[in-house]
Amino acid sequence: MDKLQSAMGSMEVKDLGDRPSSRSSGCSIVLEEFEDLVSVNLKPKFKEKYPAKPHAQLVAQKLRVKSGLIYLPGLREESYEDSDMPVHWRQRRYFYYMSGINFPGSVVTYDIHRDSLYAWIPPPNTGSLVIFNGQVPSIKEVKAEYDFDDVRYITTLGDYLTKFVHYNQRDKIYQLHHYQTPKNVAREAILIDGRRSYLREFPFEFTKLKPAMNAARAIKDPYEIRMIRKANAISAEAHINVLKGIRYFDNEAEIEAIFMATCVSEQAKEQPYGIIAGSGPNASILHYVANNEPLKGRQLVCLDAGAEWKCYASDVTRTFPISGQFSSEAKEIYDLVAEMQETCIAMIKPGVDFGTIVINAVKVAIEGLVKLCLLQNGSSEELLLSGAWRAFFPHGLGHHVGLEVHDVGDGSDRLNLLSGQKSVNPWISAYLKEDLDPIMSTGTTLLPNMVITIEPGIYFSRYALEDLFLKDTRYAKFINKDLLDKYYPIGGVRIEDDILVTEDGYENLTTAPKGDEALKIINEYKETIAEKKQKKGWLW
Amino acid sequence: MDKLQSAMGSMEVKDLGDRPSSRSSGCSIVLEEFEDLVSVNLKPKFKEKYPAKPHAQLVAQKLRVKSGLIYLPGLREESYEDSDMPVHWRQRRYFYYMSGINFPGSVVTYDIHRDSLYAWIPPPNTGSLVIFNGQVPSIKEVKAEYDFDDVRYITTLGDYLTKFVHYNQRDKIYQLHHYQTPKNVAREAILIDGRRSYLREFPFEFTKLKPAMNAARAIKDPYEIRMIRKANAISAEAHINVLKGIRYFDNEAEIEAIFMATCVSEQAKEQPYGIIAGSGPNASILHYVANNEPLKGRQLVCLDAGAEWKCYASDVTRTFPISGQFSSEAKEIYDLVAEMQETCIAMIKPGVDFGTIVINAVKVAIEGLVKLCLLQNGSSEELLLSGAWRAFFPHGLGHHVGLEVHDVGDGSDRLNLLSGQKSVNPWISAYLKEDLDPIMSTGTTLLPNMVITIEPGIYFSRYALEDLFLKDTRYAKFINKDLLDKYYPIGGVRIEDDILVTEDGYENLTTAPKGDEALKIINEYKETIAEKKQKKGWLW
Repeated sequence: MDKLQSAMGSMEVKDLGDRPSSRSSGCSIVLEEFEDLVSVNLKPKFKEKYPAKPHAQLVAQKLRVKSGLIYLPGLREESYEDSDMPVHWRQRRYFYYMSGINFPGSVVTYDIHRDSLYAWIPPPNTGSLVIFNGQVPSIKEVKAEYDFDDVRYITTLGDYLTKFVHYNQRDKIYQLHHYQTPKNVAREAILIDGRRSYLREFPFEFTKLKPAMNAARAIKDPYEIRMIRKANAISAEAHINVLKGIRYFDNEAEIEAIFMATCVSEQAKEQPYGIIAGSGPNASILHYVANNEPLKGRQLVCLDAGAEWKCYASDVTRTFPISGQFSSEAKEIYDLVAEMQETCIAMIKPGVDFGTIVINAVKVAIEGLVKLCLLQNGSSEELLLSGAWRAFFPHGLGHHVGLEVHDVGDGSDRLNLLSGQKSVNPWISAYLKEDLDPIMSTGTTLLPNMVITIEPGIYFSRYALEDLFLKDTRYAKFINKDLLDKYYPIGGVRIEDDILVTEDGYENLTTAPKGDEALKIINEYKETIAEKKQKKGWLW
Repeated sequence: MDKLQSAMGSMEVKDLGDRPSSRSSGCSIVLEEFEDLVSVNLKPKFKEKYPAKPHAQLVAQKLRVKSGLIYLPGLREESYEDSDMPVHWRQRRYFYYMSGINFPGSVVTYDIHRDSLYAWIPPPNTGSLVIFNGQVPSIKEVKAEYDFDDVRYITTLGDYLTKFVHYNQRDKIYQLHHYQTPKNVAREAILIDGRRSYLREFPFEFTKLKPAMNAARAIKDPYEIRMIRKANAISAEAHINVLKGIRYFDNEAEIEAIFMATCVSEQAKEQPYGIIAGSGPNASILHYVANNEPLKGRQLVCLDAGAEWKCYASDVTRTFPISGQFSSEAKEIYDLVAEMQETCIAMIKPGVDFGTIVINAVKVAIEGLVKLCLLQNGSSEELLLSGAWRAFFPHGLGHHVGLEVHDVGDGSDRLNLLSGQKSVNPWISAYLKEDLDPIMSTGTTLLPNMVITIEPGIYFSRYALEDLFLKDTRYAKFINKDLLDKYYPIGGVRIEDDILVTEDGYENLTTAPKGDEALKIINEYKETIAEKKQKKGWLW
């Protein structure tokens, strides 16, 4: 890889609004007209238009104002400190929601009164920047492929904003953050029709846009549901490829490799979150991402990995035996988690408070753990109130999924649905207070077209059990420590699907095989894979 | 993936120096002693110690001071804006060079006079942070696995620094950047032996450390060479897997997928730079990273991709025909680039100015292009001075490789070796001035144990030719535009190897097959792969 232009390339879009409309570099020739050239490198590939305009209208409705301007800057490119390598670029999700633009250095504005959604894009690149990086999308291309009322060069944005604030002195410019305030708005007097216009007040507002956008983003439209569905379809393919190979992998790293390779080969190049491929005890580390240990001698793999499609996440967890056969203990725990999940999913419909579904998960878990004699010395009610079950089920039951894998929801930036407990289940709330406060919210009532995960789990974390719960007299007596050694090798089981709330119930968007279907794939493919393995070549 | 703790996890190491030594969360139980527990998640896996101490000593030598303190903070974790997802974490290379630590939130200090290299690591995490993320490395583990004189918690660093500056009032604390200055050094008077000590002057120095470290990093030690060699070995395996599959891939994305999957399955989880897998005309976009177009109907793939091993880069480019057979035009251009590369590599030995090697590459290119009638209407000298050859060879010949793929070198943060031309070749220098100034440097004389790339290329960029060079009267007459249509389908050819300068010549560290050897692999594996393809399953 040659480095000549990478630094220049990454600096290209840094000075929003202030940069010259063309830049001479390389061969000293500047083209005046680029719009007819074919963009090779950064050209968006999807043909279906992103519903940016309806999104903008919905946000304005949630803002409850009749006029004003919504201003959202997209992410620019930058390099790592003391390096010429670019920081991994991930578009700002709020910007994407109102634009669908997934290339660097643009801004979107929405004039609420005039119902005008404008994209402001970087001017054409020229000379060696094109030779090194390809052409950036032109106004013509962006107009054709996106849902804007107009597309303009970002160099003209300052003038537009200045005029807006002077002509609409009672209106606000709604923004997410103070530090994103555009610097190119003239605040001093300007001449309008030969008369001096003074700004009466600071026109920027920073408190209202985010809650309005969170409320809008919590409910998915048909386009968004299609994207999440497609992300799930790719996830399914990737999980299947792992199942086909798992008997012949030597290391967790191969699971990560084949999962990612499947996604990338399907053009799903970004993972919405770090792949979690924990074998044996590593399955009990909930966000285990090292994925670098040998599989030999281990029973289960907990694979929490989902593809991203056009910035929309899927979030899928499957747990399966490396050998294709569950041990009896693993089967017990798998069936219990499956029951937790199935009974919770069956409860999903509009109007249901998510907290009641969480209670169901906990009750099913307690009942199952009592049957297995892992929880003891208390009635169901006592065990519930004790919180001792948290030794085995230490995380939330689910969350919104969308542009973020942990998507925003109404009333909170990033709603952990477990927090629904706060209002309906003071007994859990009191126990969890310390844990959840930073992301606590009020209860969540399910509404049509929300997409949420249901992801119960039961774990045998030596650290959680021996260093935390069994050392604490509030919990120790309820936990049968004599049985734990039998279960530690299991590590943990988590099963997670993405569920769409429909008008009268739910639809499971996750199609990755689980349970017996997954076992069948592991076992069915063994001959073929063994053969492939023997022939070497290829990946393994 | 559950979200409960990911935000907390990523905030964990943010407040260097000020954070409490333990943090209560989750189950309200705080362990006092963590050092004997096994770190699961972040535990460094290599057994060979990183030579941090000799690196520190070398930097001190380059600094040319006998006392003072070198202070380098490592990178902390952070989340994307308005998101709970972590920003892709990449350790600061200068910090790594003097520590070998590849986990977040540490600091390294080197007391030059006392020859004391200390690591300052985050205190143990506790409670649900461990359940979610695993344990962070303990003092005991870091002492055992790294090359430090002492390892301490970062919470005690402020006290150490305060004492240092008061006890050594004539010494400086050497840093890379003003903004990295530690905030926990008491600048007011402190009591030393019952007497008030006042700081006589501001103890921080920001100009000398970087050039000293650049000079040190330019020359690789045996450990570093082993890492670059290993990175190259993995690159070779990944390139071979691509060659085996290429006849059966449908899209550039599959090339990226199989390359990355090979690296990840070998535990090389980071790519040192974005994979460039350009087919057909895309091969002429030097930093093409979209990798998302169909291969059908395309002749060549230019694959610029190298693995990273323990933060050390390899940088490897191979160009090969998708069909396993070069067209006659492709063969002409491939052979020319191979000649450029081979003759340049043969010139490498200590004492040679890199500029003379660049001149050789350009002369061979011109000679070849004249033979092919692509350059015309001038003597070799005229063609050289005209710069018209830059239409076909628009980038530098090479650069250092190390902790950065474009590694730092003596006298410059990031030395583009093409810049060697500035001193020795005013005719190129004048021409390139506009292009290269931002990263220009003085000439580079090769020294033993430098590792550099040699990466000539010849390209047929429709944009470069038709929109830049053929429109400019300075160049147009030298380029035979009637022949270009025949060559456009080739896109471009680049061949790149990583070369170690030895005491009396060079060693090529890159083992990925090229030329006939690569063709043989493409053709040899066709039956096996076809069979695999037909059976479906697996990856494709």
